[in-house]
Amino acid sequence: MLIVMSHKATKEQLDAVVQAVERMGLRAAPIPGSERTAVGVLGNEGYIDDLTIRDLPGIQQIIHVSKPYKMVSRDFHPQSSVVNVAGVRIGAGCRPVVAAGPCAVEGEEQIIRTARAVKAAGADLLRGGAYKPRTGPHTFQGLGEAGLSLLAAAGRESGLPVVTEVMSPDHVGLVAAHADLLQVGARNMQNFDLLKELGRAAKPVLLKRGMSATIEEFLASAEYILAGGNPDVILCERGIRTFETATRNTLDLSIVPLIKEFSHLPIMVDPSHATGKRSLVPPMAKAALVAGAHGLLIEVHPEPEKALSDGPQSLTPQGFAALMADLGRLHAFLGV
Amino acid sequence: MLIVMSHKATKEQLDAVVQAVERMGLRAAPIPGSERTAVGVLGNEGYIDDLTIRDLPGIQQIIHVSKPYKMVSRDFHPQSSVVNVAGVRIGAGCRPVVAAGPCAVEGEEQIIRTARAVKAAGADLLRGGAYKPRTGPHTFQGLGEAGLSLLAAAGRESGLPVVTEVMSPDHVGLVAAHADLLQVGARNMQNFDLLKELGRAAKPVLLKRGMSATIEEFLASAEYILAGGNPDVILCERGIRTFETATRNTLDLSIVPLIKEFSHLPIMVDPSHATGKRSLVPPMAKAALVAGAHGLLIEVHPEPEKALSDGPQSLTPQGFAALMADLGRLHAFLGV
Amino acid sequence: MLIVMSHKATKEQLDAVVQAVERMGLRAAPIPGSERTAVGVLGNEGYIDDLTIRDLPGIQQIIHVSKPYKMVSRDFHPQSSVVNVAGVRIGAGCRPVVAAGPCAVEGEEQIIRTARAVKAAGADLLRGGAYKPRTGPHTFQGLGEAGLSLLAAAGRESGLPVVTEVMSPDHVGLVAAHADLLQVGARNMQNFDLLKELGRAAKPVLLKRGMSATIEEFLASAEYILAGGNPDVILCERGIRTFETATRNTLDLSIVPLIKEFSHLPIMVDPSHATGKRSLVPPMAKAALVAGAHGLLIEVHPEPEKALSDGPQSLTPQGFAALMADLGRLHAFLGV
Amino acid sequence: MLIVMSHKATKEQLDAVVQAVERMGLRAAPIPGSERTAVGVLGNEGYIDDLTIRDLPGIQQIIHVSKPYKMVSRDFHPQSSVVNVAGVRIGAGCRPVVAAGPCAVEGEEQIIRTARAVKAAGADLLRGGAYKPRTGPHTFQGLGEAGLSLLAAAGRESGLPVVTEVMSPDHVGLVAAHADLLQVGARNMQNFDLLKELGRAAKPVLLKRGMSATIEEFLASAEYILAGGNPDVILCERGIRTFETATRNTLDLSIVPLIKEFSHLPIMVDPSHATGKRSLVPPMAKAALVAGAHGLLIEVHPEPEKALSDGPQSLTPQGFAALMADLGRLHAFLGV
Repeated sequence: MLIVMSHKATKEQLDAVVQAVERMGLRAAPIPGSERTAVGVLGNEGYIDDLTIRDLPGIQQIIHVSKPYKMVSRDFHPQSSVVNVAGVRIGAGCRPVVAAGPCAVEGEEQIIRTARAVKAAGADLLRGGAYKPRTGPHTFQGLGEAGLSLLAAAGRESGLPVVTEVMSPDHVGLVAAHADLLQVGARNMQNFDLLKELGRAAKPVLLKRGMSATIEEFLASAEYILAGGNPDVILCERGIRTFETATRNTLDLSIVPLIKEFSHLPIMVDPSHATGKRSLVPPMAKAALVAGAHGLLIEVHPEPEKALSDGPQSLTPQGFAALMADLGRLHAFLGV
Repeated sequence: MLIVMSHKATKEQLDAVVQAVERMGLRAAPIPGSERTAVGVLGNEGYIDDLTIRDLPGIQQIIHVSKPYKMVSRDFHPQSSVVNVAGVRIGAGCRPVVAAGPCAVEGEEQIIRTARAVKAAGADLLRGGAYKPRTGPHTFQGLGEAGLSLLAAAGRESGLPVVTEVMSPDHVGLVAAHADLLQVGARNMQNFDLLKELGRAAKPVLLKRGMSATIEEFLASAEYILAGGNPDVILCERGIRTFETATRNTLDLSIVPLIKEFSHLPIMVDPSHATGKRSLVPPMAKAALVAGAHGLLIEVHPEPEKALSDGPQSLTPQGFAALMADLGRLHAFLGV
Repeated sequence: MLIVMSHKATKEQLDAVVQAVERMGLRAAPIPGSERTAVGVLGNEGYIDDLTIRDLPGIQQIIHVSKPYKMVSRDFHPQSSVVNVAGVRIGAGCRPVVAAGPCAVEGEEQIIRTARAVKAAGADLLRGGAYKPRTGPHTFQGLGEAGLSLLAAAGRESGLPVVTEVMSPDHVGLVAAHADLLQVGARNMQNFDLLKELGRAAKPVLLKRGMSATIEEFLASAEYILAGGNPDVILCERGIRTFETATRNTLDLSIVPLIKEFSHLPIMVDPSHATGKRSLVPPMAKAALVAGAHGLLIEVHPEPEKALSDGPQSLTPQGFAALMADLGRLHAFLGV
Repeated sequence: MLIVMSHKATKEQLDAVVQAVERMGLRAAPIPGSERTAVGVLGNEGYIDDLTIRDLPGIQQIIHVSKPYKMVSRDFHPQSSVVNVAGVRIGAGCRPVVAAGPCAVEGEEQIIRTARAVKAAGADLLRGGAYKPRTGPHTFQGLGEAGLSLLAAAGRESGLPVVTEVMSPDHVGLVAAHADLLQVGARNMQNFDLLKELGRAAKPVLLKRGMSATIEEFLASAEYILAGGNPDVILCERGIRTFETATRNTLDLSIVPLIKEFSHLPIMVDPSHATGKRSLVPPMAKAALVAGAHGLLIEVHPEPEKALSDGPQSLTPQGFAALMADLGRLHAFLGV
């Protein structure tokens, strides 16, 4: 931690800061500069809670050099983690995986048809929402528990492990009973009660990045789950909110190699939600693979024009099969 | 709704769109232009779910003229709403209110001291967090239920109704038993299960704007609560996330008069979280009042330099008293 | 400057960094921590160009404590500056000023009518664009030199000094011959050749904040003009670009008190461009005044519905007169 | 164009709007809805300037269906354009090109060494800045005309066409005399006087996207150059400004396939400025290629740790050669 004193800070103010640091059991190293003095803080283990210091008079700025996460950091866990989802291994050294399926489970026939189609095309996981976060209350909210059963049945039928979203702490048990991978949506990335409950779950978690979450906040949210006792977290970039409205969100692919520097956790990419536009999904899926993603989430619907949500960004089964063929060739070329 | 056809759309594609609209029981009015044809959709009641249309070939864009909310809209409820919080009236025509107190309840003495100080300075409500949303798991998470009791006791002792945050649907009952106004934090603005539960609560709700929520999404979140049966919602602007890092968030004061055009609900402003900087709180509090805010949330701590959270943006009791005197004069001048 | 070494940096890498700092004639103070070592850099005068250091192996991050500006900083020029625009004084201790007029000079009658109207209502300066920055080439681009003459004539006729935009270094002389205050538009805030030329101009400059400029970049742009020899710069907040589309831009009023902490330069606010919506201009103008702005820019057009640009955000002369009366009362109350 | 009337608009207001549309020589088609009436505007050629309409009473919103650009649009020029830069062809159907070199020309030896190295590694163009846009005035501003000569000489020596930035309209002639491709930097994307001057230039233009420019504004800026008479424009994505600070900018790769849908112009990607971090350049360069970019701009410096600007994002010659080998294999696989 570095404490930058104001240009006008007095000697007494500086001394008070030094003493406050020492009262915390740390050492303070004043660094006089031409314009202002800074105070280096030494001797800490990890992130310092600056509560007793930050408001002392004469301080201009406090700069944290340590991060608000530790267990997810590669500094403290150099070896890349691999997460096992009902037999499908996701992470460094593994073949990139594809989770595919509709935005929402809409009925038995729809989810079974989709499951068979994506399985035939080579998908590794079946995705589908039973609980749907929707902007307004007057649109389709998902089938709930009935949707979970239909999804699980379609997974069994097709032989694919299933991933679905859980929106509330009191649904974690129920969703974990049906699903193999528990998804936290972008709007809930900082629903800390949900994250804590998932820290106690016995199933792996797919944590989507919040719409305006920094990479630091994203990793700090993952830290909640690991700190709760669940080491099996997969991160997922799904686009951030920016001023640009030509795409639904702005896909931030640079985060893929950057997450791999900062953390040992696997990282997947969801080009469907990121772009919101069917024609952009294949090029961005391939770009994500080349950028190093450990897997992809792709929305597929047997009849996108009839989808109850996210139709415009869903691939048809034919489109998905073509993309999978492309991805297979690309992966063979990359030789991960 | 307006459906804009692509430059290259064929006559057949246009006909298919017209037929799809008519199958929904609506009328379609093609508007040929020099470059492309648009199709006006007529006869709808409120927002149209475009699911069976939006993905038809030849469509370039669908523009929704109706909004994803109705009950919160001034169009359908022209008279301004006033929310009664344990006798304190908030909204158009009422004296602007001030809710003051610490970010977090830290102990009995701290909250009692603060309650007395803010009451003496003229505050209308006591605020204080018992459940704290924190970026990382390794920092102070609030006192929980014990904090609720301390807050309620301080409210009774000082004669101030209390407002505190509820983070999880299964805590709504508990928090409602202690608090007079239930706060939804920015990170939970789209925690839809929480919003639905609050729609069934018997206490009014203070809904904070999400960090990257548009005004349309903000109002759609309020719609969840009204649609659930609870008409008593107060909106609160608390700064949005932008590229600027000199302030904690960017306070979007323009939303105050704009919300008053779009909605009948009261709107408050939280300059403490918005700016994150003590010296900016008084000028922004006064600016918010002049912009038309129905109330303010101000963080006050007896010893900000020892606060377990948000110290740098908390006023001292002395600073708060000075601000209240200024606000009182300003309000008398404005003569609301 | 603080150099943060990586967790894995070796002793040799640390030594190389220390030596590189010393080769610059500065002192290096290593600060060992539990996780990593940081190196404080001492002895510099102002901002350090880190070119010979920043890329050495083992460095994780370089944190600049000094700012990329000095002459505009209040640290080095504690007394607030007042800028004199043809007799109108703008800055701390002066009555807040109002510059009013149309977005664009459209013709003699329009600008004369507007000049008389805003003068009668109490405006201090006449604004009007002769050179207009427009998104696309197929819309009205301003009257150019003819517009300058019309504006200057209207200023003389009404007795108001005039402010107008200059878009190109080679127009600075021409614009300065007609105008009393030279405006740099948001799109040109980092047109450095223009800023340098304005540093040589004999007229004061109104520098608008760029659409996505941080406060630090904003002040660094002002520094170009002061460093060029022209001390007379007035800053102007006009809204920043964010994800919100309900307003044209997001007015960042917190910058007003913040600029006054960081810099000695005066700061004005343009609520017309910031909001893009006529009904929001009066409340935001008043809020800006209360937040401490030294002046306002207000768009006024005799017939906004016929304006060649920015009609929806222009006040009518009647609306402007009403606002000026309100502002006058507010200013009398504030007693600046 | 669609004019959406307010919920409360009167019959008289609607009639006035219809008449105003007809006075423009267009047809108005009222579309009554359950909540409000909209008016479709028919008969226009291209973008409608709504100046005489938009401010009439009773209008809630005007929606432009046409775009502020035409010549750059694929709608009106379906065939992809190929730009010839001194014999190097850039665009659809051509081998993707790589422009490489230092951020700034710093001296003869530096630029010659770099030119030889990037040529040997397979680069197609040599890049290097002679005029440098820098945030503050106290850092290296480029060698100016001397830098142009050195760059041109290095280009001749190595056999590579050169690309360099032009910052001011009055430098266009000079820069065009030395360079084969004239770069407009992000900060000047809306420097319209510069764009107009480039419309008259005899050399092709590389137009970088502004830091907060929408794709629509980006294309409208290109339209200025085409409208001025110069058809040879190459677009370049270089990252946008968002809330994320872990990378210098946020690389928006989705724009690559999207630009190809909207426009016939070639699109390149600059992963160096976008990420600001050397380790991210190779993965993002490859991802850009897979996303369909027609070329790349890569910063290379013989000694990045001594670079006068942008060292942390510059590749070494060795790093660049390795990347070129990877890109070559990837391109051979993709078989463009």
